[in-house]
Amino acid sequence: MKTPFQSVPGAIVAPQGFRAAGVFCDIKRLGTGKGSDKGPKRDLALIVSDAPAVAAGLFTTNQVCAAPVKVCLEHLRHGRARAIVANSGNANACTGPRGLRDARDMAAATAHALGLAPAEVFVASTGRIGVPLPMTHVRAGIAAAAAELGNTPAHAAAAAEAIMTSDTRPKQVAVEFRLSGRPVRLGGICKGAGMIQPGMSLTGRRPPARALHATMLAFLTTDAAVPAPVLRAALAQAVARSFNRITVDGDMSTNDTVLLLANGLAGNPPAALRPPGARDRAVLQAALDHVCLSLAHQIVRDGEGVTRFVTVRVSGARSDAEADRAARAVANSALVKTSWFGGDPNWGRIMDALGYSAARVDEARVDIGYRAPGARAILWSLRRGRPTPVPFADLCAAVAGPEFELHIRLNLGRGAAVIYAADLTTEYVEFNKGDVSNPAALGG
Amino acid sequence: MKTPFQSVPGAIVAPQGFRAAGVFCDIKRLGTGKGSDKGPKRDLALIVSDAPAVAAGLFTTNQVCAAPVKVCLEHLRHGRARAIVANSGNANACTGPRGLRDARDMAAATAHALGLAPAEVFVASTGRIGVPLPMTHVRAGIAAAAAELGNTPAHAAAAAEAIMTSDTRPKQVAVEFRLSGRPVRLGGICKGAGMIQPGMSLTGRRPPARALHATMLAFLTTDAAVPAPVLRAALAQAVARSFNRITVDGDMSTNDTVLLLANGLAGNPPAALRPPGARDRAVLQAALDHVCLSLAHQIVRDGEGVTRFVTVRVSGARSDAEADRAARAVANSALVKTSWFGGDPNWGRIMDALGYSAARVDEARVDIGYRAPGARAILWSLRRGRPTPVPFADLCAAVAGPEFELHIRLNLGRGAAVIYAADLTTEYVEFNKGDVSNPAALGG
Repeated sequence: MKTPFQSVPGAIVAPQGFRAAGVFCDIKRLGTGKGSDKGPKRDLALIVSDAPAVAAGLFTTNQVCAAPVKVCLEHLRHGRARAIVANSGNANACTGPRGLRDARDMAAATAHALGLAPAEVFVASTGRIGVPLPMTHVRAGIAAAAAELGNTPAHAAAAAEAIMTSDTRPKQVAVEFRLSGRPVRLGGICKGAGMIQPGMSLTGRRPPARALHATMLAFLTTDAAVPAPVLRAALAQAVARSFNRITVDGDMSTNDTVLLLANGLAGNPPAALRPPGARDRAVLQAALDHVCLSLAHQIVRDGEGVTRFVTVRVSGARSDAEADRAARAVANSALVKTSWFGGDPNWGRIMDALGYSAARVDEARVDIGYRAPGARAILWSLRRGRPTPVPFADLCAAVAGPEFELHIRLNLGRGAAVIYAADLTTEYVEFNKGDVSNPAALGG
Repeated sequence: MKTPFQSVPGAIVAPQGFRAAGVFCDIKRLGTGKGSDKGPKRDLALIVSDAPAVAAGLFTTNQVCAAPVKVCLEHLRHGRARAIVANSGNANACTGPRGLRDARDMAAATAHALGLAPAEVFVASTGRIGVPLPMTHVRAGIAAAAAELGNTPAHAAAAAEAIMTSDTRPKQVAVEFRLSGRPVRLGGICKGAGMIQPGMSLTGRRPPARALHATMLAFLTTDAAVPAPVLRAALAQAVARSFNRITVDGDMSTNDTVLLLANGLAGNPPAALRPPGARDRAVLQAALDHVCLSLAHQIVRDGEGVTRFVTVRVSGARSDAEADRAARAVANSALVKTSWFGGDPNWGRIMDALGYSAARVDEARVDIGYRAPGARAILWSLRRGRPTPVPFADLCAAVAGPEFELHIRLNLGRGAAVIYAADLTTEYVEFNKGDVSNPAALGG
């Protein structure tokens, strides 16, 4: 299928009937926030659909799950949404009954400001764990954001800024496509940076026989008319292929959240999305996959201290699950990641990580290769467990840029997986060691 | 039982009938090696028992297993040993059939130089993976070491230096105790630094239902007379309580090896060690536990870039296995480890890691506390999931030193585990990113 969509500006306000705002309400009680010429960094985002929307969401499978995630799961039972309120600077995680009350109060205050029911409002938080939310600031922020709502790209950009924590830039995307001939739009914003290895499910419960390990938040909007079960299935598939395939540091957050609101204002016929083989369904899935993958890649590229984006492709495992384990062992190995930082292809450390992974590996069958962006062929450093004559300098050149692909063939079966990974740098460590002399400025 | 042993000098040559040597033979072909006033760092060690010894060994459970490990497993079938030859600077891992031939040649050359059978010689290597051993240098080193063998503490120290890679200091210990009234000695040397999270078994095969993730090498000698099955069982238990409970960076090496040679020259009655409840057996186990734990702690304290040694104690898990998983999730979390580097107690990151561990965790039951060495009481930051009134500054003070204990109570059962862990520092990353412009100097 030819790419059935094109990029458009506006992110979450690109679809009809959505408005957004981002304000500074000093969640971290710094007095001023991180200053810039444009004033302190915004820390509270509001996204509103002018029409009732069908909602779908995926949430962290961490057993220690933040209060806003619990509230989203409750509100999702109604299946209808009108708004999302999100703050940065405080995760509202490990905050006990008070945290749950505060998350519900965020929804209620937003509902009150917009004339909605609290169950129509979804809540998200990101930042330091274990600190109670400053609710006076939050309520003031909600009131200010409600007053600033608008549907220009600047409004979407303000919301994208407001959910940033250690992110260095806002992350946005939007596309336009056609469903049964009607123009439809889908947009999104997200944040990431550290504590990034999401493993999200529709219920927040861990799928059986799967060990998963960010705070990442992603908010998606569309004016497509989509039946709820189709929306849930499509989002689950898109997340499985994107956000659940990234890792920055291997730490799965207590707050990971993806929310998708579909308000139907595009007027496409929703029944045309029901049959599994339907063209509309394939187009919607392709667009959603593209938007989620774009946002997921933006998260890895802007991960804390990240200087290299590495696509780890494992094939030939005994199963897809084993390929996933092998890829994650490599992508999360401290030694492999520091070698990437140094521009060292170091296939020895990669073999070591494969060997201790939970995947079956036969050293004498393993192929390991590297490809720089735009290079025609993979440079194989190892074939069937034996070093090839490719010069070390050529391998170094393949991994010298800000981006490369790592290809691992286990040659034991048909299982395959891809993980989007990053290097481990001195800047990551420096940033995350924090400054205990300034507790208010400590990260997540 | 009162501590039944006392420290003595001499490490591996403290027991009767053992000699050692450490020489420089330029395994890395640097021309000079890492220079110092005393000349280049030694890189080949030889340990010899003048009398036939009973041998026991534990080896990495990494599926990608270095050639010397394979040769040790073969030679252990004979159960008798006379010598250990070990080199640093090259792991002889992922080197295919040539590597296996080279490891056998190391044993054969050592046997030839000492007038032994090759199967009586054990082999170990540590260093970069995937580079063939420079056998001309190795053979010259073996001949030189054989000519320098001696039983003074300086000889043991030379062997301890020769097995170092990124270690900043040699690691040694020896104790004396009595078995059935006869004085007996037990000594050891080891190396660690990076790629440290050993999970060793007697067979090199992974125990079922246990996912484990160093190169660490440890060589132990005793003049006790010990029946082979008793020696194997005692070593397995000591390693389970020491080397298999440490982590520096969570990467399990292809080369991890612990070898223990018992030559019987102390003349104690071996039959007195057979009954499981025998006093001699308890004394031997206590001495072996002490020696292994001392060496294991030395490895963590001298881990690459390590500034803090953290004892992670988990209790109240549903099982010991779950306690182990919880402790390892915390001890290997990049975010927890960087917070330790910064002197930040950050219990939020600890809760996050517990939550994504494979152990069952109920946020509302978790206690988290810290104890500085010598402090009378644990400072609890969290009880039953709720922050205590202990001031942040007091928690910071508890974790400010080079060593502290982290206490985690899950309050769900009786399972307990301890893991000896380290912080993640900018120096670790800087060291391991290497310098690709100087491939010969690249680390493991």
